Amino acid sequence: MTPEERVHESFGRQGLMTTLGARITHVDAGEVDVELPFDERLTQQHGYLHAAVLSAALDSACGYAALTLMPADRAVLSVEFKVNLLAPAIGERFLARGRVLRSGRTLTVCRGDAVAFTGDEERHVATMTATMMAVASAGERVD
Amino acid sequence: MTPEERVHESFGRQGLMTTLGARITHVDAGEVDVELPFDERLTQQHGYLHAAVLSAALDSACGYAALTLMPADRAVLSVEFKVNLLAPAIGERFLARGRVLRSGRTLTVCRGDAVAFTGDEERHVATMTATMMAVASAGERVD
Amino acid sequence: MTPEERVHESFGRQGLMTTLGARITHVDAGEVDVELPFDERLTQQHGYLHAAVLSAALDSACGYAALTLMPADRAVLSVEFKVNLLAPAIGERFLARGRVLRSGRTLTVCRGDAVAFTGDEERHVATMTATMMAVASAGERVD
Amino acid sequence: MTPEERVHESFGRQGLMTTLGARITHVDAGEVDVELPFDERLTQQHGYLHAAVLSAALDSACGYAALTLMPADRAVLSVEFKVNLLAPAIGERFLARGRVLRSGRTLTVCRGDAVAFTGDEERHVATMTATMMAVASAGERVD
Repeated sequence: MTPEERVHESFGRQGLMTTLGARITHVDAGEVDVELPFDERLTQQHGYLHAAVLSAALDSACGYAALTLMPADRAVLSVEFKVNLLAPAIGERFLARGRVLRSGRTLTVCRGDAVAFTGDEERHVATMTATMMAVASAGERVD
Repeated sequence: MTPEERVHESFGRQGLMTTLGARITHVDAGEVDVELPFDERLTQQHGYLHAAVLSAALDSACGYAALTLMPADRAVLSVEFKVNLLAPAIGERFLARGRVLRSGRTLTVCRGDAVAFTGDEERHVATMTATMMAVASAGERVD
Repeated sequence: MTPEERVHESFGRQGLMTTLGARITHVDAGEVDVELPFDERLTQQHGYLHAAVLSAALDSACGYAALTLMPADRAVLSVEFKVNLLAPAIGERFLARGRVLRSGRTLTVCRGDAVAFTGDEERHVATMTATMMAVASAGERVD
Repeated sequence: MTPEERVHESFGRQGLMTTLGARITHVDAGEVDVELPFDERLTQQHGYLHAAVLSAALDSACGYAALTLMPADRAVLSVEFKVNLLAPAIGERFLARGRVLRSGRTLTVCRGDAVAFTGDEERHVATMTATMMAVASAGERVD
């Protein structure tokens, strides 16, 4: 499988991504974008998209960006991530861009940025830094 | 409304919490617990509960723990949170405990810990630190 | 005072910045750079610059970047920051670049990146995201 | 060397800890405390101890807490840490307590808490979560 095929295959096995209506819109070396539409099933108490949904999309985008640079016999697990919410997640659709900052044998550090689209307007709503770990394909933590 | 009623009322308006099957199991001053069952619709690629789902439960638990200490005319928004994943989220049900570390007029700092239950066994699977902000009840950021 | 003068005046009162040999090399709206030389008094156990020294420079760069966009009667305090170390901090000198991602009345979110210079070579060694808070000039937390 | 001796030996090689006047006051399995006095050379702009100095003490306490549980041929490097500042660091002396939350072969997750002492009063001023990595003793990142 190419890195792009591995990303799509793994993403397809994430029950949560289906539940969120998320899909991959871009894959390149060290880069993955994940898009999802607004959905009332995914809101927080003020009717905005829940911060945790943005985090889910950012975590996936970052994790798969990391996977594109890992050997073919490796899978990826999240070690930690931090999200700063920059503005209420109001919009019709949301794009989470994951980019690798530093790629290592075991650990990969990624940055993710989420934007909200309303018509032609685009707004930066969240930013993430995340540490990803290479694991054996069976899904066991190498660590 | 009592703080406990405010927490339940706001939680009930979170579409995401319904989608996750999450419910509040404990509310006290500076303390909220959120529980959710395992669900295949909420998995990551290895069949574990997705880290972002744990984050959602932790974020809610932390946010509502903060809300219990805020004046009655305030609502709560997440400013930032960081999650460290300690073990794969394997289990039948999951409990996220949010506790206030420092309560201020505008900002509240919380710690959250998530445990996974399998039968009688309990495992610490994630820890969060989060900054929460008091907002006007209409949901607008005071900031 | 201009924003640039306020930044220099406040920086000059930081005992730690003198101890670290740090100086400001760039100030613009939402942007501050802080530079410091390698110093054996500032090392960790393997002889590299200590991660906490990079954090100090990044925290200052981010905090003062935030200050450039605050009203003249406000000072700045750090609410939280997270640092990912990307490579050992080996070099002759280090530059911490702080940039505002989102500027609010009370809270400002910044990103900081630190690079190490050895001769003509430049290496990205750390990245930070930070939340800064506007405080009354007396230094009291408004919150 | 015992784990305690390894911690003291490594700490003694940190130029920064000497510069900060920091010393280790407690070592046990998965636990290290680092203490330092207030010093005007280590202040931020309002005369409090600089947040980055607290971070340095917390990072060391967490790193060495992790080291106590690593094999004898391993050293420790910081992967990432996040600090939430809970109150101004006003005090005569400061104690940073590092505790291991999760110990793995490659990665260890720690929590650190810093308190300020003024006379008999104790105040919780900062909390950290950190990821530490086992490295070969030569100081090279295994990763």
